[in-house]
Amino acid sequence: MQRALSLARNRFADWYQAVVREADMAETSPVRGAMVIKPWGYGVWEQIQAGLDRRIKATGHENCYFPLFIPLSFIAKEAEHVEGFAKEMAVVTHHRLKMIDGKLQPDPEAKLEEPLVVRPTSETIIGDAFSRWIRSHRDLPLLINQWANVVRWEMRPRLFLRTTEFLWQEGHTAHAGEAEAVEETRKMLEVYRAFSEDVLAMPVIAGEKPETERFPGAVNTYSIEAMMQDGKALQAGTSHFLGTHFAEAQNIKFQDESGGLEFCHTTSWGVSTRLIGGVIMTHGDDDGLRLPPAIAPRQVVVVPMLRDKPEDEAVLKYCEVLVAALAKLTIFDQPLRVLLDTKKIKSAEKRWNWVRRGAPIIVEVGPRDASANMVTYMRRDDLRDGDKVKSIAKPRVDFLEGVQQLLAEIQQGLYAEAKARLDGNIKTDVTDWAGVENYYAGSDEEFKGWLRVSWSKPTGAALEAVEAKLKALKLTIRNAPLDQPSSFGACVFTGAAGTEEILIARAY
Amino acid sequence: MQRALSLARNRFADWYQAVVREADMAETSPVRGAMVIKPWGYGVWEQIQAGLDRRIKATGHENCYFPLFIPLSFIAKEAEHVEGFAKEMAVVTHHRLKMIDGKLQPDPEAKLEEPLVVRPTSETIIGDAFSRWIRSHRDLPLLINQWANVVRWEMRPRLFLRTTEFLWQEGHTAHAGEAEAVEETRKMLEVYRAFSEDVLAMPVIAGEKPETERFPGAVNTYSIEAMMQDGKALQAGTSHFLGTHFAEAQNIKFQDESGGLEFCHTTSWGVSTRLIGGVIMTHGDDDGLRLPPAIAPRQVVVVPMLRDKPEDEAVLKYCEVLVAALAKLTIFDQPLRVLLDTKKIKSAEKRWNWVRRGAPIIVEVGPRDASANMVTYMRRDDLRDGDKVKSIAKPRVDFLEGVQQLLAEIQQGLYAEAKARLDGNIKTDVTDWAGVENYYAGSDEEFKGWLRVSWSKPTGAALEAVEAKLKALKLTIRNAPLDQPSSFGACVFTGAAGTEEILIARAY
Repeated sequence: MQRALSLARNRFADWYQAVVREADMAETSPVRGAMVIKPWGYGVWEQIQAGLDRRIKATGHENCYFPLFIPLSFIAKEAEHVEGFAKEMAVVTHHRLKMIDGKLQPDPEAKLEEPLVVRPTSETIIGDAFSRWIRSHRDLPLLINQWANVVRWEMRPRLFLRTTEFLWQEGHTAHAGEAEAVEETRKMLEVYRAFSEDVLAMPVIAGEKPETERFPGAVNTYSIEAMMQDGKALQAGTSHFLGTHFAEAQNIKFQDESGGLEFCHTTSWGVSTRLIGGVIMTHGDDDGLRLPPAIAPRQVVVVPMLRDKPEDEAVLKYCEVLVAALAKLTIFDQPLRVLLDTKKIKSAEKRWNWVRRGAPIIVEVGPRDASANMVTYMRRDDLRDGDKVKSIAKPRVDFLEGVQQLLAEIQQGLYAEAKARLDGNIKTDVTDWAGVENYYAGSDEEFKGWLRVSWSKPTGAALEAVEAKLKALKLTIRNAPLDQPSSFGACVFTGAAGTEEILIARAY
Repeated sequence: MQRALSLARNRFADWYQAVVREADMAETSPVRGAMVIKPWGYGVWEQIQAGLDRRIKATGHENCYFPLFIPLSFIAKEAEHVEGFAKEMAVVTHHRLKMIDGKLQPDPEAKLEEPLVVRPTSETIIGDAFSRWIRSHRDLPLLINQWANVVRWEMRPRLFLRTTEFLWQEGHTAHAGEAEAVEETRKMLEVYRAFSEDVLAMPVIAGEKPETERFPGAVNTYSIEAMMQDGKALQAGTSHFLGTHFAEAQNIKFQDESGGLEFCHTTSWGVSTRLIGGVIMTHGDDDGLRLPPAIAPRQVVVVPMLRDKPEDEAVLKYCEVLVAALAKLTIFDQPLRVLLDTKKIKSAEKRWNWVRRGAPIIVEVGPRDASANMVTYMRRDDLRDGDKVKSIAKPRVDFLEGVQQLLAEIQQGLYAEAKARLDGNIKTDVTDWAGVENYYAGSDEEFKGWLRVSWSKPTGAALEAVEAKLKALKLTIRNAPLDQPSSFGACVFTGAAGTEEILIARAY
């Protein structure tokens, strides 16, 4: 049987676009670089939000909401910060439109005295609140999170991966001591790692970014990096230890137990709708999207095979009873999400819609199933035997008894598949620059994995030289994994004694 | 015992500000007109969102996300729409900042060809998507909702009630026929009415707005109106039947069953963070906020009375067991929300924090409670006997057995109290203009309710004359209640034969 998509993963960029479109996840909008997130795509985001929000709250953080607009003077307070973001900021300059010479335009009389920036991130506006809220060590730690939209002007947009506007959460915390703030930074990185692996079924490697890749204004930046099916790395989440940089720029101080005034140590950390792009590129196949059950808006979709015949009524009735029984179950500590698809289109078209969208279990009920108390279903994670679609028939009672186990198996199976790909494609035996060049030689289209190599952790100009060499091969340093060995090979760039292992990859 | 607030409700505007501050709900921000929503305030919004989202989905709507920015040319497409919003729109004109002459400013070389408006509402950008998504009658009805931030420039901001940026949901739907679209408009108005009354415990009157108060571009606008404790009306939600106005402006067409091309009929409807202002002004008292349990972020707060003594351990242990037992219960079909307040401040201070914030049940546990298996608590809805705070002691087992019933009682009691105020303060015996003038004569500070009067439903200039008369008394027409009698008195403005009853009130 023909694949649902006309493109296979060997033309990866085209395949990605096709999956986003065919799975009805999102589309481009008339506003360059901004996307429309469609119901199925937004449904995935709602599951990500709900799941991650529980974990963020369970680690003691509270949600707030801060203004969308940031006064220009606030952004300018931290020098590296403004330098990092100035080139991609949307600027509000007027607060009224007026018809002038028959043309609607910004009213010159409503020009703002100070322009407002649409938040690219909220360190400065939240830091301002922190400076008012924090007085004493008793106010610390202050642990805040916000779910919001942010804007970073994007010249080469790609749906979910790089968009001018995106949705995210940004955590912001203040602490009395450096050690606590570093601990928080690492704790939230671990929350991201666990969420990515346990919920998105997307294995990642957590580590520290090189100094050139730090968040503008940060002392240290940590990331989780995932491997997409074309071998490229996707930075899926970051956590920043900001030291006292923002506290000094914004006067975030507290009175310590002995009465002295000290600057707070702050952190920030975020993940965004980019995660959805990661899920697509991790789990999609030649038939479209495959969603891990933990984030599928519908985990089981029931398609009644109606044919405008008298037996339709019995089929529909049977489906309703089945759906009601499924809706009473729980999976991953939440109610099982089931849909009875009664849309007035052909059932074959419905089936393929759900295949492309990646619903984990697709049940098709015909008159024979209804009369025999059977359930016939497809597993989206294991759809085909060669070209043939696999259809599994089970007595209704067995299906209901086993469906939770089945969803858990699908979740684990998708993770295991991605984990094997990650583990199998990190080369650890490259010891010199010739080896690097050799591995990444050849066509850009060819699958290339990552290298895990030793280096001597250069800084300043020496680091820039390393990055220029890598850039010529379209490579970047992803991170230095947290999990480091006790001894190192020679630096792959210079031959000097190595002091750290890093991951090198092509990246999104 | 002294009140928690130093202000009583007879100085209502000051009292409102004091409650917002003392209940730690929100504060003004450095961006004029935009607020910071603090954790307790945002927690209320999260409950409102979750509860309303369930109802919006239960009526068949799906969530999406559309761009924050709207091209100027889109806004200009519907003439009344642009006229209605032009004066309050934030306009993005540049996409980069640059250091010029030592000053950070919008980069003249990064001026946008077409300015972008920050959405004040999304009819035009969503209508554009609808024009692409809708092809056939089989695509209809299209039922979409979005949770988002919007910006309407505000010259006289007030926290929650009128802010330059606010959070809301906006529903947008397209239908094949006029009747279905009108039905949808009314259905969502009813969803708002029921939500407001059942969940916010805020009684409202649903009705149709006069033509001058319609949403810019709408054929009909309906509202729910709530009475605040100063007698003023608060428009708490609106639902608009847009006819084919936006469909014609944006070419939203469908092929009907006979193959002809027709314009869709569209609707939109929204409620916002303004609801939180309504809750405060409906339920607050001289001790601060009182929250209906259905939206209280914490329904039961347990305050251990710790005194740095050995018995603290037993008190804390007892509290933990109590909280664990409470967390296993459900109320209003959701897990009961309980907090053990272990903050390191004095327990008396904690108690008053929770009183001001309006936690429905505040439990204080001392060593004697712990050793006698007792629970001593306060009901926030019925806090005092004269000046004295009422403290109720019950065996632990009885408290646990009755707590769900108690929360339901508090919810109903707050509604009943507000309902009695609304019903008792709508005057229905005013039959002429002198009567209107007479009722609203006197000091602005004095409590005045609403009038329900007959009128002859004038339009155009005659309606404007009526509104000018009302405006001189600081009055407005709120709506024509859906529930109309079969015969009418004379028009209160002209003495002509009445054709409709309307509500007249001062308003926010």
